[in-house]
Amino acid sequence: MNKVLRIDMENLSHKWENVKPEHQTYAGRAFTSITLSEEVDPTCHPLRAQNKIVVSPGLLAGTLAPSSGRMSVGAKSPLTGGIKEANAGGLTGTKLGSLGVRGIIIEGAPPDSEDWYSILVGKDKCEIIKTNDYAGLGLYELIGKIWKDYPTKPGIIGSGIAGQRLLKCAGVFGNNIENSDPGRYAGRGGLGAVFGSKRIVAIISDGTGGTRPAAKDQEKFDAARKVFVKSLNAHAVTGRLNDDKGEPFGGLKNYGTNVLLNILSEAGGLPTKGFSSGRFDKAAKISGEAVHDLVDRTKKKFGDKAEGKYAHSCHPGCVMACSNVVPYEDTGKMHVSPLEYESVWALGANLGISVLHDVAELNRLCNDLGLDTIEAGNTIAMFMEAGLIPYGDGPKSIELLKKAYDESSVEGKLVSSGTQTAGEALGVTRIPVVKGQALPAYDPRSIKGIGVTYATTPMGADHTAGYTVAAEILGIKGTVTDPRDLKKAELSQAFQATTAYIDSTGYCLFIAFCILDDDDGFNAMKDTVDSFLGQDIEVTSYGKDILRKEREFNKKAGFTEVDDRLPEFFRTEPLPPHNVVFDVPDEELDEVYKNM
Amino acid sequence: MNKVLRIDMENLSHKWENVKPEHQTYAGRAFTSITLSEEVDPTCHPLRAQNKIVVSPGLLAGTLAPSSGRMSVGAKSPLTGGIKEANAGGLTGTKLGSLGVRGIIIEGAPPDSEDWYSILVGKDKCEIIKTNDYAGLGLYELIGKIWKDYPTKPGIIGSGIAGQRLLKCAGVFGNNIENSDPGRYAGRGGLGAVFGSKRIVAIISDGTGGTRPAAKDQEKFDAARKVFVKSLNAHAVTGRLNDDKGEPFGGLKNYGTNVLLNILSEAGGLPTKGFSSGRFDKAAKISGEAVHDLVDRTKKKFGDKAEGKYAHSCHPGCVMACSNVVPYEDTGKMHVSPLEYESVWALGANLGISVLHDVAELNRLCNDLGLDTIEAGNTIAMFMEAGLIPYGDGPKSIELLKKAYDESSVEGKLVSSGTQTAGEALGVTRIPVVKGQALPAYDPRSIKGIGVTYATTPMGADHTAGYTVAAEILGIKGTVTDPRDLKKAELSQAFQATTAYIDSTGYCLFIAFCILDDDDGFNAMKDTVDSFLGQDIEVTSYGKDILRKEREFNKKAGFTEVDDRLPEFFRTEPLPPHNVVFDVPDEELDEVYKNM
Repeated sequence: MNKVLRIDMENLSHKWENVKPEHQTYAGRAFTSITLSEEVDPTCHPLRAQNKIVVSPGLLAGTLAPSSGRMSVGAKSPLTGGIKEANAGGLTGTKLGSLGVRGIIIEGAPPDSEDWYSILVGKDKCEIIKTNDYAGLGLYELIGKIWKDYPTKPGIIGSGIAGQRLLKCAGVFGNNIENSDPGRYAGRGGLGAVFGSKRIVAIISDGTGGTRPAAKDQEKFDAARKVFVKSLNAHAVTGRLNDDKGEPFGGLKNYGTNVLLNILSEAGGLPTKGFSSGRFDKAAKISGEAVHDLVDRTKKKFGDKAEGKYAHSCHPGCVMACSNVVPYEDTGKMHVSPLEYESVWALGANLGISVLHDVAELNRLCNDLGLDTIEAGNTIAMFMEAGLIPYGDGPKSIELLKKAYDESSVEGKLVSSGTQTAGEALGVTRIPVVKGQALPAYDPRSIKGIGVTYATTPMGADHTAGYTVAAEILGIKGTVTDPRDLKKAELSQAFQATTAYIDSTGYCLFIAFCILDDDDGFNAMKDTVDSFLGQDIEVTSYGKDILRKEREFNKKAGFTEVDDRLPEFFRTEPLPPHNVVFDVPDEELDEVYKNM
Repeated sequence: MNKVLRIDMENLSHKWENVKPEHQTYAGRAFTSITLSEEVDPTCHPLRAQNKIVVSPGLLAGTLAPSSGRMSVGAKSPLTGGIKEANAGGLTGTKLGSLGVRGIIIEGAPPDSEDWYSILVGKDKCEIIKTNDYAGLGLYELIGKIWKDYPTKPGIIGSGIAGQRLLKCAGVFGNNIENSDPGRYAGRGGLGAVFGSKRIVAIISDGTGGTRPAAKDQEKFDAARKVFVKSLNAHAVTGRLNDDKGEPFGGLKNYGTNVLLNILSEAGGLPTKGFSSGRFDKAAKISGEAVHDLVDRTKKKFGDKAEGKYAHSCHPGCVMACSNVVPYEDTGKMHVSPLEYESVWALGANLGISVLHDVAELNRLCNDLGLDTIEAGNTIAMFMEAGLIPYGDGPKSIELLKKAYDESSVEGKLVSSGTQTAGEALGVTRIPVVKGQALPAYDPRSIKGIGVTYATTPMGADHTAGYTVAAEILGIKGTVTDPRDLKKAELSQAFQATTAYIDSTGYCLFIAFCILDDDDGFNAMKDTVDSFLGQDIEVTSYGKDILRKEREFNKKAGFTEVDDRLPEFFRTEPLPPHNVVFDVPDEELDEVYKNM
């Protein structure tokens, strides 16, 4: 895996380059962030020609290492104004990995072009194709069309309607493994709009002729990956507990990430109705358990015709299978896939919506429009906060989101433009963003460590950037850290550094549940990486290197410690039911990156 | 003039304080900026309780010094996120001056209040009055109502519909001297929204019982002010040239500030159709000359019933009288007052609108809604840039702006929320703002010095913060500085420092035309200030002190040199007809505040 595809959209040309010697160990987030920090002017306008898009499969993508096929998309973010990496499963990571492509760097923009393009990447080939017929389509239709045009079922990533219109809620969509649902989002940071700014609808990765990437020490690699599979399968969160009975496996397989909804609500840390409570009294109705029951119900009713599913993998080779396919109650056909915890929260609890169908429909619309669900849900909440829609009104929320299809609708544009822009446009002062990016599904007043991550990660508010919740709420690593304890700089830093490493390997972040608990699992995971590269990579220092570069980029972009803060209302408004505020001192926040 | 009124909106109380000994020489902008820098947390949310509003009449307001009755409004700006001073004429400056009020400091906000308040300031008295009947009114109606409730015709400043809804286009309105037009705006920075956040509709200053402030050396003061009047009257821009014939006076008196429209268009520096050209081929139709002709035409037609006027003073005692009353062509009745250059540009040339009536109507709507015309015009331009309204379409622009009355209209809110928010919501990448505030009526590509001011002033893009155009285009001070010359740091710094001084004295900035040309005028002006205070004030160092404090506030608020830049497109898109880009090096920009 040593080729870099460099594409110039100004003159629609491309060239193949070798991976630079000093970049040999970089893939995924390491590759996107370090390339951006070396090549992009941090002060450039994120939606004009100077910005670049960097796509990179994780280091092990395409290998047989379990759950290692994820990929990173990076650019200067139009949402945060800083460096951004967004990470997703789907098919593209493994396809690019098997094609030997370490990264795709997309520069420039067609000057004054009315045309739209797609990029076809195959075995030793690249075509930049004018695809005006792909533009402006809903993404279900687009993926169906591309899979018809390219019957090899390629991986697809790109921008939907929102991104093509340069709106900052836009994520980078990816296609599901086996259906036409655009359910694999490198969602955050508005990177879909960067695709739009370069007039790119899709990057189509055709894996035909690809081969499995070889490890430097293949024997060690194969041994390690087998141990690691065993470790993942044995863990209560990631594993297949009752495999012998041929039925329900681990927590993620049964209930998906949405297993968290009831847990967080119980803990008083589930942001509800625009971050006004930490508990949603109707959480059970839209929980992972409720989805599980719906799938079972429709299976019973519709038999083989039922499309609902849990234990669904987001990318080839994922053994954790936390994804799902949510069926319509009345037909058993697929409604949306997946319906994850963050999306259920953003489009459900945070809006006070407890009708599972409505939440699934909002998610389906986001997927079709090319919107990040976390950002979109928070944006809809701004309309509620402003009194334009009542909290809890699913049908009105759906109606609002549907306006986003209409290019002449100002409401449709605003609901696609992100939480901060919408909040400010509507006169809201309780806008839950850090660095312009909306907060995810954990209230930082109840769970201080995740607040420290939200505030300090270079990514803008992002739970995946340093998921301290694992230690604070889920009791991973045996001992639970008190979520109310204020000394969280060290914890957050450790999670942020490890995450930067994992996001570079191609492994899904959820392997953390297992490797934090099981030293054998951790060592096996590390052995896969080290044997693949043929060198010993120190996890934390590798991660810190990436964080330092990202941080430096943001500093040059104009960020200061003032940007490492939560919005004022988290410090002044107590959160029911425990009536807590975010009281981590600024000094503790600044500690995370001090002397890193 | 040594009392400070401190109002706490949390518990609706007030107290009178003495001016601190170290603040004795501070009034106007010096008072607002230094009070803010001492009392307000620069990182606070501008529209929540921690922000403060500071109102201060200029030092000489209420005296007989000519054109010295202006006042400053300061707060942390919701538009820029930095410190802000906005400056206006009207009645309030002189009323407060004569009441001996150096400043009003408004803190806190009523918790969860649905009520609206107004503050009545009189001779040694203050009342905080519940005025729910004042809220939600158009400002023409509001001023009429207040002048009915308070027949002494008090000065009034406050927030209109936009500010009450916390929207960032909102200026602080003030009433005209003699009619009900809310034409005196401390327009910039969205400070009207800060009034709204504190649930304040109006500050009503009743001058009854007030006295003329006494100078420390009254004799010297009186002598100096007479010399200064003479100097102002003798200057071609500010003066009464043909007084002996009892007719047309100086340039400002004949054509108002809008004398500039044709001049700037000729110079290729008039931003046209969203900063896409420096020349507007229909400038003559909406120029100061056109307004002059309209006034003359309607006078001739309607005689005594004609309300149109030029040579109209914005505050009592102004001898320059650059304001006007624009009549309806068909009735001769007042349409709007004033119609200034900046407004004609923002709502006319920048939108490609050349129908004078439409421009006047847009301005009247802004005045009624409580919107800053510069920000509102640039915001409407974002709708045009996004293709939602064609450039040049007056009626559609009027229709859009009228939606701002409707609290349920998302378009109405967006058009009231400022250029950056609207631009980002609509997917525009050519957003002409610095520090979040829209650019005024001089294209920085053609006139580099004003670009240096836009970029570096702590105020966000603001021509009045350092009006180098006087030297670059208008030939003030005899020798013209080439507008294309790139060495402009020193020029901008000098203008910025002098401006900070003038904005503190109560003098209108336009005295600069005269005092830059006429040393006697300058000395007389300085003598009025020095004799009033009884001490020698060095103009530049006084101004620099203020700038340093403002700059320091912004630094603590998170600003870096990256915020001292123009938007990218000014550096990359050549401006017709001269096809120039903004090419002042970053180092030159940073020079302005280096070692200040």
